[in-house]
Amino acid sequence: MWHQTTLTLPPRPRGFHLITRDVQVALPELRQVRTGLLHVWIQHTSASLTVNENASPDVRRDFERYFNHAVPDGWRAFEHTLEGDDDMPAHIKASLLGPSVTLPVRHGALALGTWQGLYLCEHRDHGGPRTLILTLHGERT
Amino acid sequence: MWHQTTLTLPPRPRGFHLITRDVQVALPELRQVRTGLLHVWIQHTSASLTVNENASPDVRRDFERYFNHAVPDGWRAFEHTLEGDDDMPAHIKASLLGPSVTLPVRHGALALGTWQGLYLCEHRDHGGPRTLILTLHGERT
Amino acid sequence: MWHQTTLTLPPRPRGFHLITRDVQVALPELRQVRTGLLHVWIQHTSASLTVNENASPDVRRDFERYFNHAVPDGWRAFEHTLEGDDDMPAHIKASLLGPSVTLPVRHGALALGTWQGLYLCEHRDHGGPRTLILTLHGERT
Repeated sequence: MWHQTTLTLPPRPRGFHLITRDVQVALPELRQVRTGLLHVWIQHTSASLTVNENASPDVRRDFERYFNHAVPDGWRAFEHTLEGDDDMPAHIKASLLGPSVTLPVRHGALALGTWQGLYLCEHRDHGGPRTLILTLHGERT
Repeated sequence: MWHQTTLTLPPRPRGFHLITRDVQVALPELRQVRTGLLHVWIQHTSASLTVNENASPDVRRDFERYFNHAVPDGWRAFEHTLEGDDDMPAHIKASLLGPSVTLPVRHGALALGTWQGLYLCEHRDHGGPRTLILTLHGERT
Repeated sequence: MWHQTTLTLPPRPRGFHLITRDVQVALPELRQVRTGLLHVWIQHTSASLTVNENASPDVRRDFERYFNHAVPDGWRAFEHTLEGDDDMPAHIKASLLGPSVTLPVRHGALALGTWQGLYLCEHRDHGGPRTLILTLHGERT
């Protein structure tokens, strides 16, 4: 079976945000899949998706600290500066982390490890709503 | 349906290059897919694939500037130096950006955001032709 | 066809390790697939997967050198430090490299380039066993 849907997330502040639950709620069809994959795509170039620790909020704050250090706002060597000091760094961070994740599905649920959660990585100061495309396919239970 | 084909891209200079159109032209079968996924794989370890802004060429130049800064040619700590100052950095960049992207397909076309384009990231000074494997699967229209 | 299995790798030292063969041995079903994809997922947030050069061991040592430089143990700005100096850097590295790879399958085998191999990236000093979920799907031969 194939199932594809769009999920638009409301604006979130710059930083790293757990969205595992948002995706599960948007996809009741997950329960119909015995073995499969869920592809999650973000239709933007200044926000991204990753998977990391789902427990301590300080991990997500440290992600923000680290990536701001690794790709500084207003870096002097950037040429593409018209859209603000946070724009070009947002593009770089988006490609370092990536525009999609593909998650294993087993027995009607995401087969994540105990500590794994899906992050929306918002790299702009004022990113606005973010649109995801969820594509689920697999064998029916 | 499953469809798999090889696409060999001619040599391109070191840097970041838009190849969305090359992939679309190589895959007329895209139009047959109502809901599906396209997996694009690069069979090399010193070039990579990512998705980012498809408009301003200065974004792609800033990618080249940033990654050269983050992973400098001839970094003193590298041990694997026999193949040139740009070789080991190319391997690192290739893994930071990744060897593949999986794109959503909807109504016979790639379901990318307005500003999203597929990049070939050429990390060698003289990388030569690059071979991609395109794997398309989904439900027929 | 769909086939999903779990592969638990024994503990390996911190660093980058070739595991292409381990995955192939765990998946005799590969030979049944004419055209397809293999999704490999790691159920942890302090180890990751990537694809890079399968020949010189010095490439894998340089990966370890580079990532330790880019994300230093005990970085002063990290807040999440209770689990040790290598913990938060392991989370960051895991997201830079990613929790999964999807590999093309052709004529009953992985369609990798000549020099490509799958790496387990162990980012902790004492990471313990690591569990992978292998999801294979495609058209039968």
